[in-house]
Amino acid sequence: MVPLGALVLTLVLAEAELELVPESIKGHPQVQSAARNRDRRAARTLLDASLHHEAMRQLPESDRRGRPDLVHFSLLLALDSALNKADKLRVVVHTRNDERIAIHPDTRLMRHYPRFVGLMETLLREGATPRHNPLLVFEPGWTLQRVLEHHATGPIVCFTEKGSPIEPGTWMEAKVAQSPDLTVVLGCFPHGDFHHAPETFANEVVGLGGDALSVWTVEMEVLAHYERAVKVFPRPAMESSAQPT
Amino acid sequence: MVPLGALVLTLVLAEAELELVPESIKGHPQVQSAARNRDRRAARTLLDASLHHEAMRQLPESDRRGRPDLVHFSLLLALDSALNKADKLRVVVHTRNDERIAIHPDTRLMRHYPRFVGLMETLLREGATPRHNPLLVFEPGWTLQRVLEHHATGPIVCFTEKGSPIEPGTWMEAKVAQSPDLTVVLGCFPHGDFHHAPETFANEVVGLGGDALSVWTVEMEVLAHYERAVKVFPRPAMESSAQPT
Repeated sequence: MVPLGALVLTLVLAEAELELVPESIKGHPQVQSAARNRDRRAARTLLDASLHHEAMRQLPESDRRGRPDLVHFSLLLALDSALNKADKLRVVVHTRNDERIAIHPDTRLMRHYPRFVGLMETLLREGATPRHNPLLVFEPGWTLQRVLEHHATGPIVCFTEKGSPIEPGTWMEAKVAQSPDLTVVLGCFPHGDFHHAPETFANEVVGLGGDALSVWTVEMEVLAHYERAVKVFPRPAMESSAQPT
Repeated sequence: MVPLGALVLTLVLAEAELELVPESIKGHPQVQSAARNRDRRAARTLLDASLHHEAMRQLPESDRRGRPDLVHFSLLLALDSALNKADKLRVVVHTRNDERIAIHPDTRLMRHYPRFVGLMETLLREGATPRHNPLLVFEPGWTLQRVLEHHATGPIVCFTEKGSPIEPGTWMEAKVAQSPDLTVVLGCFPHGDFHHAPETFANEVVGLGGDALSVWTVEMEVLAHYERAVKVFPRPAMESSAQPT
């Protein structure tokens, strides 16, 4: 039996496609118009592929940038999980521009996408939110290497499309038997490769075989099978039931 | 060994809080203003708790209605899953107003929430989208009972907060060993009970113990452990890799 108190899964959402509208396209009519619709200055709005498609053609790697939606759902899935509620999960976001978003496990993230975008815009501008006792902290100057040096617990495993195909349930069972502390790195971008070869920052590089999967699809496998391996279920009964919204 | 060709998981997202703005509040200033911002008529917009909070106070059960976001993420998680890509998953949505949304497994749902809302508004008005060879079909007159009579495969299990607590991995293994075809009913509402007692429509009523969990949290457990039980991983190699976006 693994002692339940000690172990933790560290989930790193890496090279996340979350950034403010880059200087070079903030004057583009599409960007200006989208910002005006929200009564904001263009440079203070998040880059969003769904709104800025035309303008983004001028950017390098335009086909993968501007995807706050990937960060949103990945964070919701992690923070709402039984693993997080059992206080056995740490989530950290590393962005394409080598910034870090540290997330307190008690964070109750808004479900409504436009509100999440507003929250991220505030966070990227002010560096922390809420101002007192912040749950989310944003800092520049964090390479993925530095994030891992600071946050990693146990061995570091990177999931990518090109990693050695595994069966995630049996793989996770064996992994947790070796070391219940574990760090999993997932690429929080829509497709393509990590900018740095995963072998340079991870002890092991694995995949789920077949075609590319969404980040939350891989995340779901990691969370559910880690939960089983560390015996999160059945959960202790509550005296009064809290309500997710 | 279970023969892989035959089995399927049917996932029913039940009593989903997805509806157009009800007649009684379409004249409310908050509803009118939100519709105007999107250049739409109020009666043609989805009820959205995040936008219509004040106006919704006049509605019965206002604290749980207007949650298209729950349907959005739940569908993305299901449709993007390796289980769906292996053609072993069927998803159907049943709404609070006893409507059915039938969803083709090949549907590539938009990730961007405002676009998803637009899609649902079109679907609820026109009954099918796209017009030719529709992937999504919306029909009134489908009670949950009728949805289950029409769609259920194998035993019907309902997950609710009050169901007998299980460990989802071991439970699913045993379940699939008995019958690889399985129907799982999840409440696609933020909190509270089903309007009809789950015992009246399900063969088994189970839960994950503890406090209430988000629909996608429960869904993640169901999908990941069903995938393991029916051996979806490792997936067959692809000749060229498709790109999720």
